[in-house]
Amino acid sequence: MATKLLLLGFLALTCSLASASDSSPLQDFCVADLNGPVKVNGFACKNAMAVQASDFSFGGLHITGNTSNPVGSKVTPVTVAQVAGLNTLGISLARIDYAPKGINPPHTHPRASEILTVVDGSLEVGFVTSNPDNRLIAKVLQKGDVFVFPVGLIHFQRNVGKGCAIAIAALSSQNPGVITIANAVFGSKPDISTDILAKAFQVDKSVIAKLQAKF
Amino acid sequence: MATKLLLLGFLALTCSLASASDSSPLQDFCVADLNGPVKVNGFACKNAMAVQASDFSFGGLHITGNTSNPVGSKVTPVTVAQVAGLNTLGISLARIDYAPKGINPPHTHPRASEILTVVDGSLEVGFVTSNPDNRLIAKVLQKGDVFVFPVGLIHFQRNVGKGCAIAIAALSSQNPGVITIANAVFGSKPDISTDILAKAFQVDKSVIAKLQAKF
Amino acid sequence: MATKLLLLGFLALTCSLASASDSSPLQDFCVADLNGPVKVNGFACKNAMAVQASDFSFGGLHITGNTSNPVGSKVTPVTVAQVAGLNTLGISLARIDYAPKGINPPHTHPRASEILTVVDGSLEVGFVTSNPDNRLIAKVLQKGDVFVFPVGLIHFQRNVGKGCAIAIAALSSQNPGVITIANAVFGSKPDISTDILAKAFQVDKSVIAKLQAKF
Amino acid sequence: MATKLLLLGFLALTCSLASASDSSPLQDFCVADLNGPVKVNGFACKNAMAVQASDFSFGGLHITGNTSNPVGSKVTPVTVAQVAGLNTLGISLARIDYAPKGINPPHTHPRASEILTVVDGSLEVGFVTSNPDNRLIAKVLQKGDVFVFPVGLIHFQRNVGKGCAIAIAALSSQNPGVITIANAVFGSKPDISTDILAKAFQVDKSVIAKLQAKF
Amino acid sequence: MATKLLLLGFLALTCSLASASDSSPLQDFCVADLNGPVKVNGFACKNAMAVQASDFSFGGLHITGNTSNPVGSKVTPVTVAQVAGLNTLGISLARIDYAPKGINPPHTHPRASEILTVVDGSLEVGFVTSNPDNRLIAKVLQKGDVFVFPVGLIHFQRNVGKGCAIAIAALSSQNPGVITIANAVFGSKPDISTDILAKAFQVDKSVIAKLQAKF
Amino acid sequence: MATKLLLLGFLALTCSLASASDSSPLQDFCVADLNGPVKVNGFACKNAMAVQASDFSFGGLHITGNTSNPVGSKVTPVTVAQVAGLNTLGISLARIDYAPKGINPPHTHPRASEILTVVDGSLEVGFVTSNPDNRLIAKVLQKGDVFVFPVGLIHFQRNVGKGCAIAIAALSSQNPGVITIANAVFGSKPDISTDILAKAFQVDKSVIAKLQAKF
Repeated sequence: MATKLLLLGFLALTCSLASASDSSPLQDFCVADLNGPVKVNGFACKNAMAVQASDFSFGGLHITGNTSNPVGSKVTPVTVAQVAGLNTLGISLARIDYAPKGINPPHTHPRASEILTVVDGSLEVGFVTSNPDNRLIAKVLQKGDVFVFPVGLIHFQRNVGKGCAIAIAALSSQNPGVITIANAVFGSKPDISTDILAKAFQVDKSVIAKLQAKF
Repeated sequence: MATKLLLLGFLALTCSLASASDSSPLQDFCVADLNGPVKVNGFACKNAMAVQASDFSFGGLHITGNTSNPVGSKVTPVTVAQVAGLNTLGISLARIDYAPKGINPPHTHPRASEILTVVDGSLEVGFVTSNPDNRLIAKVLQKGDVFVFPVGLIHFQRNVGKGCAIAIAALSSQNPGVITIANAVFGSKPDISTDILAKAFQVDKSVIAKLQAKF
Repeated sequence: MATKLLLLGFLALTCSLASASDSSPLQDFCVADLNGPVKVNGFACKNAMAVQASDFSFGGLHITGNTSNPVGSKVTPVTVAQVAGLNTLGISLARIDYAPKGINPPHTHPRASEILTVVDGSLEVGFVTSNPDNRLIAKVLQKGDVFVFPVGLIHFQRNVGKGCAIAIAALSSQNPGVITIANAVFGSKPDISTDILAKAFQVDKSVIAKLQAKF
Repeated sequence: MATKLLLLGFLALTCSLASASDSSPLQDFCVADLNGPVKVNGFACKNAMAVQASDFSFGGLHITGNTSNPVGSKVTPVTVAQVAGLNTLGISLARIDYAPKGINPPHTHPRASEILTVVDGSLEVGFVTSNPDNRLIAKVLQKGDVFVFPVGLIHFQRNVGKGCAIAIAALSSQNPGVITIANAVFGSKPDISTDILAKAFQVDKSVIAKLQAKF
Repeated sequence: MATKLLLLGFLALTCSLASASDSSPLQDFCVADLNGPVKVNGFACKNAMAVQASDFSFGGLHITGNTSNPVGSKVTPVTVAQVAGLNTLGISLARIDYAPKGINPPHTHPRASEILTVVDGSLEVGFVTSNPDNRLIAKVLQKGDVFVFPVGLIHFQRNVGKGCAIAIAALSSQNPGVITIANAVFGSKPDISTDILAKAFQVDKSVIAKLQAKF
Repeated sequence: MATKLLLLGFLALTCSLASASDSSPLQDFCVADLNGPVKVNGFACKNAMAVQASDFSFGGLHITGNTSNPVGSKVTPVTVAQVAGLNTLGISLARIDYAPKGINPPHTHPRASEILTVVDGSLEVGFVTSNPDNRLIAKVLQKGDVFVFPVGLIHFQRNVGKGCAIAIAALSSQNPGVITIANAVFGSKPDISTDILAKAFQVDKSVIAKLQAKF
């Protein structure tokens, strides 16, 4: 009930994006001209005279995400695509909602580290270090707990509480990127050759074909 | 009432720190050796073998800060000083609690941009651009709204709702720094010469002396 | 007299801007196309074929600035706005002239550290560290002395000699920015709410109103 | 036969590491003190007086790697761990040998982009973009061909020629890191919960258990 | 003979470029729009939809360079100018061919460190540290040996074997730049004043004139 | 006479160092522990409690350098070696004195761009772009003129006035480094092989030997 009110009241701030360091701003701000004709590393800037407070703002992070999907979680991102004023500033957010037993599946952020706060519920979280150790560093978090995922490392969250869970993730890039491992490996367009995946995962091609059919 | 439950339930994630870009990590992680004998830019690292999940974690961000102070707000920081695992990762957090009419007074973060989320209540927020324009870019935010403060610019928040307010701020440095303008200008140790401040603020020295007495 | 001749002869190189680190150039030079249609982080580049020696040059830093103003000082900047060839190079200059008793009032540079050289006269200089210490680190400088102001920290200079004073400041950005504290806090356009400033500076609103009237 | 002589002659320069951007050196060189007592971001430096040419050198990249393993490839790295002089310089190498049909399985480099050159043989190479597109960008390369893998993205190579293949990979970090997806996801120590992986890959736990048994 | 077959077979991967650190990518890739109308630090990006595998690829690094020139060496670069996909990624390559007794004359790379691999033959390599030591750090390398040249330092290679030699150089920038000392000092367009060079090299102007006539 | 008084009065602020971009500070300051036992990229920090105003200061830049040497100029540097407080701040200075006809010979700064101000006298200045253009961009400067030298490019100054000349140079690194071309090429310790230099400069070994004897 407290959870429900919390959800009604704040409606969950969550996300599972990942993280790294952007270049510094060279003026007070460079609000992204998201649809301008010129593409550069990051985004070109809107004319400073035309910039308004709304360029630095975003609403709706209190709204619960729809977790009716196979993984039982929903990420609501607040990156430069949503807030043009984040351009060049090296930071972004996301809210993540988790259904009971929902997971934010193993993924990486190629351009950002992440710090996640549990706003409601209980989460098992973890990341795996690079070769050769591949050490899993994991912890169960409760409401008000915080956890850090270093840039580029595979990490995940799972709702291990009885009700829904909510988290806010902050990321060290305005455009951190997300690579969901299962989707990128088994659901790329076009597919990675079954030969490669069968050898990489050391299973029959039929298992790979089944996995590819899911994504 | 919803607010109260929210506070009981989540107990507010807030902060008013500010933000900029740190150098990148050169290994999976470099957990800060906060009390080691060698001081470097940032912090030296703990032995990787001794690192544990708790080095990446922190608890208590659901606890309401005590706002019984002249400005009526309280910042609970989650920087490298609280979470050693944030070292080299270029990100940190803070929770900010605001009493009714409470403010997070004008301040800057010399080393970070900031993105603030209103978890509960209603806040007037703003930042001022650099010379010569000194343009104030401000907005009233409601629950679930987000706002961005670019690195190094003076910014503030004020609770304009009826009850308490709570915010979470994410910052683009593991050690963003905070410079509260009033404290740094009128409360430095030792004091800045009254002569300088009287001329800078174009008031009598007696006014300056009064201001200095407050901080 | 020596001072006067010096002024006639060299006419003072001074400034009080502040400082931080820009991204590196990715070609020999990228001379700013200051008025081009496309705005990016920093500036887009002029066609390299059209670049000339004058793009890297500037004149008149020997000319004494007019210090007939309330603070008794004048900054003559040499940033990317004056020398387009500074774009991407992460450095700029300024000359500062000080009338007797003149000050360069407390200010910050959101994007640069600064190193100041006293070319003539005698200056009291200082900066204040961030919270919670707000330590004032100050010194009286004579001709030929140098002092450093770290990025983003509040700093100032005051002429404590009998005659005029002159300084040259170098800054670690082609566009360091300047935030004069009094102007940004009490002279923003539009004004910051009197309520906020009264609480921040812990004085009556009437005092704030008086201060706002000055800027 | 030409291949054999090439192997005898040059003995293959290969590798499959991945890539990103390190901070710049602040002196001519900072040769890593790999086993010193103080750990920092990257490595502390040996005394400059004790530095010798051998600190910048490494031998044996002409030696064919042993590809008798399940994936049929072998990476010989030349990073800061092998050449202490690479510390702070933001670059490293690897040689990769591929048996016929051998693969360098899907992996990422959390801290480097990679440019790979085919020294001998024929390779199918590719990388997958981040969400939501997960576009596979792939190509078959012949001797003398080069291909680029952007930082943090999942990529792979497969020997599609009749004989052995050899490649040299250069990476934009002295310590790029390698995360072999299969090993990190199914072979972490300890294991990621079967529950999480079953839901992430949308297969029965028994399939996950089989996969985990392989790594 | 083995060498000849190697040359026929692989046809040498070599280069003598030099190296430093670029800013990080802010999206998966930013393929350079090499001939677009807008010039920025680095290059503007092609539309991501139009990007193809060929944008990340290059062929012909197995082809021996023509060393019939006064220095007896040939550099075949693979930088952003050849592979548009290298833009923002901070890495590039070059192949260098050396005739018997050929040299890659003293040069610097203003924006990159370099790691060189001897693919065939035997090379004497070295770099000189900055003032005041100007220490030469040099070594004779054999096939399969690697050597590192720190960013901005003067370095060179000489073929000290009986046959041709081949090397691959990797550089820590997509556009490292090359400054061949003799060409820049004695062959600039227009010439540096003979007066300056005579005093700098402490020789008669007639010697300088002779040197200038060569370049 | 005015010049003489200027020299007596201010005693010249000059230098000819060169330039590039350092990593950012991660705390208010990190005053270099110049002689501490631990060497890192840059310098380790003194204990912050022990830091004093003198750590940010330096005196004597008004003192004329002794130009009684073959090139007729003298550089007085103000880098992190002289002002420990410059550590991590990415900026430094130098004063350069020039005798009549004196030169600051062709040199590069591997880690900094430079902006030079003529404090007294008249200087011919220039830099040469990288291969293949090797374009000389040069200008004659008068008192109060400023000129920019991009990072890593060969540049020089020559006194073309009747009297002495003085300049101040600011550089975009706390430790820019200086490579005087003639000294590094012909005066390295040990010497670069005469064979290499004869071929590089396309002159007889006897000419090289003469040049080497000078440095």
